[in-house]
Amino acid sequence: MNRHEIPTPALLLDLDAFDDNINKMSSHLKARNKAFRPHGKTHKCPEVAKALINAGAIGCCAARLSEAEVFAASGIPGLLITTAVIGKEKIARAVALANKAADTIFVVDDRQNVRDINDAAGKRNAPIKLAVDLFFGRTGIAPGQPAVELAQLIDSLPNVSFVGLQSYDGAAAHTTPFDARATRTKTTMGKAVETRAMIERAGIACPLVTGGSTGTYRFDAENPGMTELQPGSFVFMDMEYGTIGGPDGSEYRDFKNSLTVVTTVVSRPPGFAIVDGGYKAFSTDRPFTPEAVGIEGVVYGWAGDEHGRLDVSNASRDLKLGDRIEFIPPHVDPTVNLYDSIYALRGDRVEAIWPIAARGKSQ
Amino acid sequence: MNRHEIPTPALLLDLDAFDDNINKMSSHLKARNKAFRPHGKTHKCPEVAKALINAGAIGCCAARLSEAEVFAASGIPGLLITTAVIGKEKIARAVALANKAADTIFVVDDRQNVRDINDAAGKRNAPIKLAVDLFFGRTGIAPGQPAVELAQLIDSLPNVSFVGLQSYDGAAAHTTPFDARATRTKTTMGKAVETRAMIERAGIACPLVTGGSTGTYRFDAENPGMTELQPGSFVFMDMEYGTIGGPDGSEYRDFKNSLTVVTTVVSRPPGFAIVDGGYKAFSTDRPFTPEAVGIEGVVYGWAGDEHGRLDVSNASRDLKLGDRIEFIPPHVDPTVNLYDSIYALRGDRVEAIWPIAARGKSQ
Repeated sequence: MNRHEIPTPALLLDLDAFDDNINKMSSHLKARNKAFRPHGKTHKCPEVAKALINAGAIGCCAARLSEAEVFAASGIPGLLITTAVIGKEKIARAVALANKAADTIFVVDDRQNVRDINDAAGKRNAPIKLAVDLFFGRTGIAPGQPAVELAQLIDSLPNVSFVGLQSYDGAAAHTTPFDARATRTKTTMGKAVETRAMIERAGIACPLVTGGSTGTYRFDAENPGMTELQPGSFVFMDMEYGTIGGPDGSEYRDFKNSLTVVTTVVSRPPGFAIVDGGYKAFSTDRPFTPEAVGIEGVVYGWAGDEHGRLDVSNASRDLKLGDRIEFIPPHVDPTVNLYDSIYALRGDRVEAIWPIAARGKSQ
Repeated sequence: MNRHEIPTPALLLDLDAFDDNINKMSSHLKARNKAFRPHGKTHKCPEVAKALINAGAIGCCAARLSEAEVFAASGIPGLLITTAVIGKEKIARAVALANKAADTIFVVDDRQNVRDINDAAGKRNAPIKLAVDLFFGRTGIAPGQPAVELAQLIDSLPNVSFVGLQSYDGAAAHTTPFDARATRTKTTMGKAVETRAMIERAGIACPLVTGGSTGTYRFDAENPGMTELQPGSFVFMDMEYGTIGGPDGSEYRDFKNSLTVVTTVVSRPPGFAIVDGGYKAFSTDRPFTPEAVGIEGVVYGWAGDEHGRLDVSNASRDLKLGDRIEFIPPHVDPTVNLYDSIYALRGDRVEAIWPIAARGKSQ
């Protein structure tokens, strides 16, 4: 199959750009002696997770238990579930996952939840690995003494073990410009590093401080207190990450746009080209519309669940019924979550079709 | 399984409200002698399509070929694919679908596309059924003479047959208030009815004029020139359809909110409750956030791909870690498209789990 035969709308991956992105991040972190556990919530695709492990990643983060279950079923090691697992049924599943993949790490921010996991885990050779999730605006427990006390609770229980801190600051990832982003992540990650020191002073080992993102990896990788980074979006990139600003104030170009959505012109009313990609083909959570690739002067407008309306009055070439147009998505993670597979291309040749096996696994 | 055991986030369907919605629409159209071909793009679920057929629907619309293929595989009759099928590969699949389900109707708005379908169809006992898609702002050919000429072309070709007009005005569905909506759909549907008369004066039978929506069904059902209605959202409803205005200027309450997204509180920082539903649990294409059910004073704020941040400072009751909260989605169709199944509830009991078999089938 080649690029022009793929049924649209579809996700296309430029493998050359993808390989470059992976190698760049991996070598950057390796040179700074940081572990690399990229976030699987971006791609939800075991083949992508394997490509990252082949490039030196020690495992894969998962946003949710059900996402981690899919990665585990595909043999991906080193799972870290970055949201707390809450409720009796889910804790039972978490224990089952830990029984199968003993190196899996779960995050916690609540004392009762820790006790519930300990109780459900039962007596075991390998205690369930827990990291304390620190609060920087969304989930987590306050850094400092509250986090220390939660670590002490974990340390006191027989069926769970404290492995470290999750220190993820979602807002830092998208802070602009470059210098403000540096300041923000240095400040918040600094609190994590202080908390780590407090825990160690309390006599508890804290081997793990994990966090960071595609937006902050440069700064976090220079932070001697952080042990591992968990960026996700860099494998594909998107319009939004392009806007966060590079060191010279321009676009953020550390990584290449490797992922596009390909659509077809399915109707051609005067002045417009209607393509077969709308709200079900692109996520709409960002305040901009998809960016056409390979044609200038085309402005995408949302036109419902299944359609986009391209203003082609200033287009650099004519668009005819049946023409294909690729777009960079505004925001990659929830866009990928709309598709069942990724068409992995080397040039115009489809080298593989990768199932997005954890698509929809938000539970 | 009961309501409280469903892994979150998940789609819940209140079967009592769902049954009421279906019966109301079905009896309304039956009393006015209109055929009822509800749109499957809302639910993408063969079990919902079957429930509608059991209530008198003659078939099911599909937004796309791949969606229709799923319905056909489930034995749903009377398919109408409401977007033109463009390109060699898709036309070949359309012919295969017509060979399997001869009553399937495809829409067209382009002369070359009509010829391509005719050529691909080959000599056959049952010509492929084509309806001309009329332009009211998105896809389609202009009503009046251009549409007549396209009908004539279809009528002149051996392997396709002209069955009528698709007259869908997407903007009419959401026009507010009630009276403006009435005026809009009467005007646009009036053009379809005129076009039908022109086609019949040209000596071509035009048995079908299909269109209408949850927002316009009252008005379209009174239009003697329309033969069938294809509303979709009424089965579930959503926040947006609530805002389009009823006859007394209040909320639009013709149908009940039967569908909710259930989430769990997974973190409880001071003043906020973080739930496990974000951009991957709700579509974000409307300018409002999910509406909590069964609790007052809760304001949902987007908090990324997997989280929502509830401001609970004015909540009518305390929210604890592990509590479940249901939300009416802002916009139902693209929200349903995020999930693999619908939990169909009678009271608190899960009566069935219905696969959303055409989820992601936007091709």
